[in-house]
Amino acid sequence: MNFASDNVVGASAPVLEAIVRHNGGAMPAYGADPLTLGLTPRFRTLFEHPDLAVFPVATGTAANALALSVMVPPFGLCLCHEEAHVMEDECGAPEFYTHGAKLHGLPGPGGKIAPDTLDGFLSGLTRHVKQMPPRALTLSQLTESGQVYTVEEISALSRIAHAHGLTVHMDGARFANALQALGCSPAEMTWRAGIDILSFGASKNGALAAEAILVFRSDLAETLEFRRKRAGHILSKGRFLAAQLDAYLADDHWLANAAHANRMAARLAAGLAEIPGLRLAWPVRGNELFPILPAGLDEALRRGGAVYYDWASRSLPAGEMVREGERMIRLITAFSTTEAEVEEFLGLARRAA
Amino acid sequence: MNFASDNVVGASAPVLEAIVRHNGGAMPAYGADPLTLGLTPRFRTLFEHPDLAVFPVATGTAANALALSVMVPPFGLCLCHEEAHVMEDECGAPEFYTHGAKLHGLPGPGGKIAPDTLDGFLSGLTRHVKQMPPRALTLSQLTESGQVYTVEEISALSRIAHAHGLTVHMDGARFANALQALGCSPAEMTWRAGIDILSFGASKNGALAAEAILVFRSDLAETLEFRRKRAGHILSKGRFLAAQLDAYLADDHWLANAAHANRMAARLAAGLAEIPGLRLAWPVRGNELFPILPAGLDEALRRGGAVYYDWASRSLPAGEMVREGERMIRLITAFSTTEAEVEEFLGLARRAA
Amino acid sequence: MNFASDNVVGASAPVLEAIVRHNGGAMPAYGADPLTLGLTPRFRTLFEHPDLAVFPVATGTAANALALSVMVPPFGLCLCHEEAHVMEDECGAPEFYTHGAKLHGLPGPGGKIAPDTLDGFLSGLTRHVKQMPPRALTLSQLTESGQVYTVEEISALSRIAHAHGLTVHMDGARFANALQALGCSPAEMTWRAGIDILSFGASKNGALAAEAILVFRSDLAETLEFRRKRAGHILSKGRFLAAQLDAYLADDHWLANAAHANRMAARLAAGLAEIPGLRLAWPVRGNELFPILPAGLDEALRRGGAVYYDWASRSLPAGEMVREGERMIRLITAFSTTEAEVEEFLGLARRAA
Amino acid sequence: MNFASDNVVGASAPVLEAIVRHNGGAMPAYGADPLTLGLTPRFRTLFEHPDLAVFPVATGTAANALALSVMVPPFGLCLCHEEAHVMEDECGAPEFYTHGAKLHGLPGPGGKIAPDTLDGFLSGLTRHVKQMPPRALTLSQLTESGQVYTVEEISALSRIAHAHGLTVHMDGARFANALQALGCSPAEMTWRAGIDILSFGASKNGALAAEAILVFRSDLAETLEFRRKRAGHILSKGRFLAAQLDAYLADDHWLANAAHANRMAARLAAGLAEIPGLRLAWPVRGNELFPILPAGLDEALRRGGAVYYDWASRSLPAGEMVREGERMIRLITAFSTTEAEVEEFLGLARRAA
Repeated sequence: MNFASDNVVGASAPVLEAIVRHNGGAMPAYGADPLTLGLTPRFRTLFEHPDLAVFPVATGTAANALALSVMVPPFGLCLCHEEAHVMEDECGAPEFYTHGAKLHGLPGPGGKIAPDTLDGFLSGLTRHVKQMPPRALTLSQLTESGQVYTVEEISALSRIAHAHGLTVHMDGARFANALQALGCSPAEMTWRAGIDILSFGASKNGALAAEAILVFRSDLAETLEFRRKRAGHILSKGRFLAAQLDAYLADDHWLANAAHANRMAARLAAGLAEIPGLRLAWPVRGNELFPILPAGLDEALRRGGAVYYDWASRSLPAGEMVREGERMIRLITAFSTTEAEVEEFLGLARRAA
Repeated sequence: MNFASDNVVGASAPVLEAIVRHNGGAMPAYGADPLTLGLTPRFRTLFEHPDLAVFPVATGTAANALALSVMVPPFGLCLCHEEAHVMEDECGAPEFYTHGAKLHGLPGPGGKIAPDTLDGFLSGLTRHVKQMPPRALTLSQLTESGQVYTVEEISALSRIAHAHGLTVHMDGARFANALQALGCSPAEMTWRAGIDILSFGASKNGALAAEAILVFRSDLAETLEFRRKRAGHILSKGRFLAAQLDAYLADDHWLANAAHANRMAARLAAGLAEIPGLRLAWPVRGNELFPILPAGLDEALRRGGAVYYDWASRSLPAGEMVREGERMIRLITAFSTTEAEVEEFLGLARRAA
Repeated sequence: MNFASDNVVGASAPVLEAIVRHNGGAMPAYGADPLTLGLTPRFRTLFEHPDLAVFPVATGTAANALALSVMVPPFGLCLCHEEAHVMEDECGAPEFYTHGAKLHGLPGPGGKIAPDTLDGFLSGLTRHVKQMPPRALTLSQLTESGQVYTVEEISALSRIAHAHGLTVHMDGARFANALQALGCSPAEMTWRAGIDILSFGASKNGALAAEAILVFRSDLAETLEFRRKRAGHILSKGRFLAAQLDAYLADDHWLANAAHANRMAARLAAGLAEIPGLRLAWPVRGNELFPILPAGLDEALRRGGAVYYDWASRSLPAGEMVREGERMIRLITAFSTTEAEVEEFLGLARRAA
Repeated sequence: MNFASDNVVGASAPVLEAIVRHNGGAMPAYGADPLTLGLTPRFRTLFEHPDLAVFPVATGTAANALALSVMVPPFGLCLCHEEAHVMEDECGAPEFYTHGAKLHGLPGPGGKIAPDTLDGFLSGLTRHVKQMPPRALTLSQLTESGQVYTVEEISALSRIAHAHGLTVHMDGARFANALQALGCSPAEMTWRAGIDILSFGASKNGALAAEAILVFRSDLAETLEFRRKRAGHILSKGRFLAAQLDAYLADDHWLANAAHANRMAARLAAGLAEIPGLRLAWPVRGNELFPILPAGLDEALRRGGAVYYDWASRSLPAGEMVREGERMIRLITAFSTTEAEVEEFLGLARRAA
């Protein structure tokens, strides 16, 4: 019953098997191997984009920070939600990779930036050399509150950003979960809606340590390989990253993993809905739940062996709050979460309530 | 017959098995897992050092650059051999991680800095605010020419460096091969000889993608974890790095791998010694050979299926040079190199000569 | 009637005369001249501090950013008021000089951080490698709203900051005006109250282009000269900066200038108090006024030739706000402001009201 | 008899008078004043370039480093002569402003890079992501050895650089002296010969602390103002820089100053030619002389009150060297050097010889 995160487990079976299968024999180093070279056509087909460029890396922090390094100059602002992962959980990786650009957080319930909020901010700026000019917008899909931007919302935000000269990045650490939630195509949720660069996450959904930076605008891809090398993010045995991504995409394995995780989250939510005094801070859209527990329940759950994080957020829906005695927590399901674990957790909750 | 590098092959069997074995079940993310925590006592025992700190990363470039980031301030000089990997092959990773420190290359045959050269450079410096002050020395063990610093040489260089206020780093991408060449202990070749931080390489000698930054001076370790996070080099599923390093060290697997690679190199060298008109630029010490081929041999070898790199170097021994028609190449053996491959290569050479 | 800022005028007569007087003859370059060398004993006496180190620069932005560069590592947080000059008006200079540290703004009326706010923030932090650790606090004296920290407040803030391992910087762009407002000694308002580094402003109070970074903790001064050189902030003809600072301090010229500016501000405030419908957003403490004008008055003043800035602030006192039709402006007096200008402005206001 | 450098004296009379003359009255801050605005048309006329952009700064180090910051990305190489000022005397300012780009020094007698040397270097490069790609070339005019590139040489170097995708910078710390030596126009020596950005020096030739970055390619100018602000190099009282540059250019004052300094250098050289055992390392082209003194002369000169620097260089002409007992020194004349000083020095030398 470990719901702490979708990165507390190892790789899924097909991904692990691919690592083993491709381990033997000599292959050119530093990404010149056939497995790595094969990623480009595969992602181009998947995203229906003829020029997309692919840069595999081992961590989501590296994917986000490298992406932003070609979008925001050192003197520029990068807009994000005020609780975004890049803002709060990467120890300043974007600042490091951009050489000192500034992240500027915008508020919004559910971890989502509303188009009006973005428009208001950008239109209200005084433009003077004393103020860092905004140059990029980064959206988290799923958001830090487990919510999902619709295709229309992404399009509206991108349109506003582009109109003001900004490029648009999507932090897709839980890209597959969001895609399953929306039921649209990868292209629809990204470049067709105005996304310029995507951090395509895999580690949280079945890979061991693999993400891909997908660049939809070829001019933004020009310097990324140098920056990736310079950051120590080109593995000499590039096959390791490529084998994971290859197996991850093969036979829609990634979609099946995400669908399963989302289903487990929905099942948890349905069960929790029957617990008296418990409510969810936001509706479940992907594989994350944020229950607000009545007094006493947290202790009972932890005593029973459930593992998860306490949570706090400034982006609760209007009118919602965590009251005296209550406690907000975060539960995350993964490709590996079993129905038995879900039922065990629900049973624990029911008994305690 | 691929002698291009020791990173063109995958992981050794015990390392790969460890990845598979530790894949199942939930473990805390970001290095709080028991496998990662177990690395510290293991390395402390191996290096006979009670306070050593361990920071696993996936690439040698990351290991070197992160190490230097705590040794050299942005305005400082880092001394290295003029053909060092940090100088020539990391696309400016040290400059990126140190925020603009300068690498200053010193000459020397065999890729080695002589103590007198270091002393002369440091003693001859004018100290003015216009000149970047030297703050660190980095030594490559093996060197880019496959040579090895003796323990006495390391001690002499460290003594000079420390006397001038510099810290000393060792780039141990081929640490195990050097250790086998010298027949000394890890402690003797590092901190007992004055090394402050070691990039302990494993990827070239059996791991898939794993290195460890070993810090022997606790004050230098203080900020490294923040810097590692900020660089995107803390894997969320930290078990992947730890499992590799664990298996790499277990049962002296790493030493056996290096001993084998060195033996294959020695065997190659012995065979090549009998080829008329062929000589080695430098003696074989570890797992690297740099033959200077007589006219025509290169073509014959490549036509026969041998894979390797052309080579050029400014640090040939006094009197040595590559003459008109000759060609210098680099051959590297690995833990996985077979006697059959060696014999096939030698047969090819004999027939062509 | 230019009240736009205290930097729209040139140098005061004694400062300008010093530049002219010290122009002739040869002097060593890069700060080795006797004028520059003389600054150290002069500032040490003035601040009653035997070890203080002095680094003259030409701009306040350079002073602040260089000061912070030795206080905050690249991965650290620097706390400041959310409307501080370093946060809003220096185009990311602190981020540039610190190599990507993050400024974190704290709220508070009048541009002041309350000790409780600081304590609450620092005590509430989760300490994890994902979060940038706080390493410095910077206070603006005067604040962006023209308010002044009392010695007791500075002491309380410094005590909290130091207890959490932070160093404390004071942005003294209007140091003299604040000092005159408090009537204390330079030592009392700085190092005796816990300030570690002071940006001692002079350009806004009589100098042409001169500030001094004063470092009260000798360990923090060690690398500043290299950083200053590297930033291009060591003038080759160092006499230019030194002559200004020398004349600025001589015969309490700087105090007289600030006292005059503050007096002019007080006189303006007294006159404005009689204008119906006009009120000040904050009380006048130094040389800055923030009147909230009734409808129509702004146009009349500008038509009459008054020059000043519109203003907006998130740190109005509780209950205060700019109402429909009203307009908030900023007026700044300088050493050169004349009573005639003040009266002309007041006359304009009276006639319009 | 101070021949240490052309920055040991203050400003020339017309420059100083301009500072005084423009000190009074209010002007907008941060470069919006009419004096600063007037620099653009003035420089455009002088350089016969309709789109040239002007960025005044107070130091040559700032001018060079800011110029390079828009020419070289953080992962790029900047080629320069191995003894260039940017390489040896700016404490890593280019590395700081470019966020870690690497300066790569090319050899050549007289501090000059020969077109063949540049071509050979660029054509011989292996292009791999491990190697930092060359992106800019910077030429010093005068060189560190007081030599001058001809217009033809500049054109040849620029053509090669541009053909390889590099931009070209000129460090014109002694631009006026070089211009007088060549007798050509500012346009001919710069953009018509392929220079993309010029550091136009004034401080060494009559200004107190003023240089101008002149950008001949408008795309390179786009971000410079943000970078200048961020570096603390926009003076609030911008009039100070503008007044200097205005007076410097008025009535060909700058050309007269340089012509005088060059004349004094030529006169010194002519006199020294008669001293037995003394020779110049390189011919005198501008205002710098590098005599190789016979044994004993140095002591006699210093005892007699002459001030200058000892010198060492790796770019002596073929066959030249400083022999046992000899000593190489550097003498620099300035706009303010008098014939009396020259004669006094020569008399001293004659008596000692």
